[in-house]
Amino acid sequence: MADYTFYTNPMSRGQIARWALHEAGADYDQVIVEWKEKPAGFLDINPMGKVPTLVHHADSGDRVVTEAAAICLYLAEMNPEAGLLPSETEMADYLRWTFFASGPVEQAVMSRHFNSEPAPEQEMMAGWGSFERTMSTLEKHLEKRDWVCGARFTMADVYVDSAVDWGLTFGTMPPRPAFVAYAERLQARDAYKAAKAVDNTLIAEMKK
Amino acid sequence: MADYTFYTNPMSRGQIARWALHEAGADYDQVIVEWKEKPAGFLDINPMGKVPTLVHHADSGDRVVTEAAAICLYLAEMNPEAGLLPSETEMADYLRWTFFASGPVEQAVMSRHFNSEPAPEQEMMAGWGSFERTMSTLEKHLEKRDWVCGARFTMADVYVDSAVDWGLTFGTMPPRPAFVAYAERLQARDAYKAAKAVDNTLIAEMKK
Repeated sequence: MADYTFYTNPMSRGQIARWALHEAGADYDQVIVEWKEKPAGFLDINPMGKVPTLVHHADSGDRVVTEAAAICLYLAEMNPEAGLLPSETEMADYLRWTFFASGPVEQAVMSRHFNSEPAPEQEMMAGWGSFERTMSTLEKHLEKRDWVCGARFTMADVYVDSAVDWGLTFGTMPPRPAFVAYAERLQARDAYKAAKAVDNTLIAEMKK
Repeated sequence: MADYTFYTNPMSRGQIARWALHEAGADYDQVIVEWKEKPAGFLDINPMGKVPTLVHHADSGDRVVTEAAAICLYLAEMNPEAGLLPSETEMADYLRWTFFASGPVEQAVMSRHFNSEPAPEQEMMAGWGSFERTMSTLEKHLEKRDWVCGARFTMADVYVDSAVDWGLTFGTMPPRPAFVAYAERLQARDAYKAAKAVDNTLIAEMKK
């Protein structure tokens, strides 16, 4: 048995976790989960019924990790030899921008998609404030550096870039030059290409 | 100067970060930020204009951390002597449930507040799926254990409980027995009480 069982669907946020698995050099078996027909026992592992869901078959017992961002950070922790963890001086950016992407960016994009953006008087209560301010804040950070933590790629880039890459692909984020340049930088990585190839092959097979 | 400058407002998610500061035993100066009149330079630190925002005056230079969950995890990392970090076997739960609370729980509560819950055919796309499923998933986890990681309090409890405590107080989460018991367990902590007392005093002064 591989170290990890990876429940995913190629047309889902599972693409983020697969890229993280490849960056970490982790050994995994995959189980494809369809939204309408889920494998037996899957809801016991993740009652949300959502992918990606990762089961780590550790020596001390099985551990379940859900939420794409948590899976990324967990894989960085479990595979320190891959060099994806932040140094002490990179820790602030690593955590700040991973939570910024999984929180405000995700909420800004989804609230616009669901046509429920906060009115000006509601911006104080909504964690993301406004779509425009969220985009500009991320843009300002990426304008000045190549990677989330500055000079070096870390696991935070897998999660933050997945938000950017997905947003640019589906037109849910504006194609600002800093976003486009960042996404291109990440698309050049071997692990990105390897993971994407697996998902694209699965998608092509599903469409046959 | 204290190690940290803490930008907050007592009636905000800043309460989460203050509790984390007290759990970590961190030395901080506070700056109260009003939504309409922000201190000079605050938008340079956090272009979102949001609190909590934490500036760590580290030896290597100032570091900015935003997003309440990121602030919690960062403080645990910078103050290992406080014993708030997960062990290797606790890591999966620590990350999974912190991101579950900052992602699906926050989105489920906010989408209901903004009257924009996903229709059944949209549940696959929305990361949180449905309000009911999100609540039941968290309930199922807390029903079986005292703390997020099992037998021991960690920094993940500060963030997850803040979501539960806030949700129960404002009626945005259902008062299920597992939520009520968990919130009561956390309310008994000295750091919770100390932080809450500071914010409650500030709120009382504001109302004068």
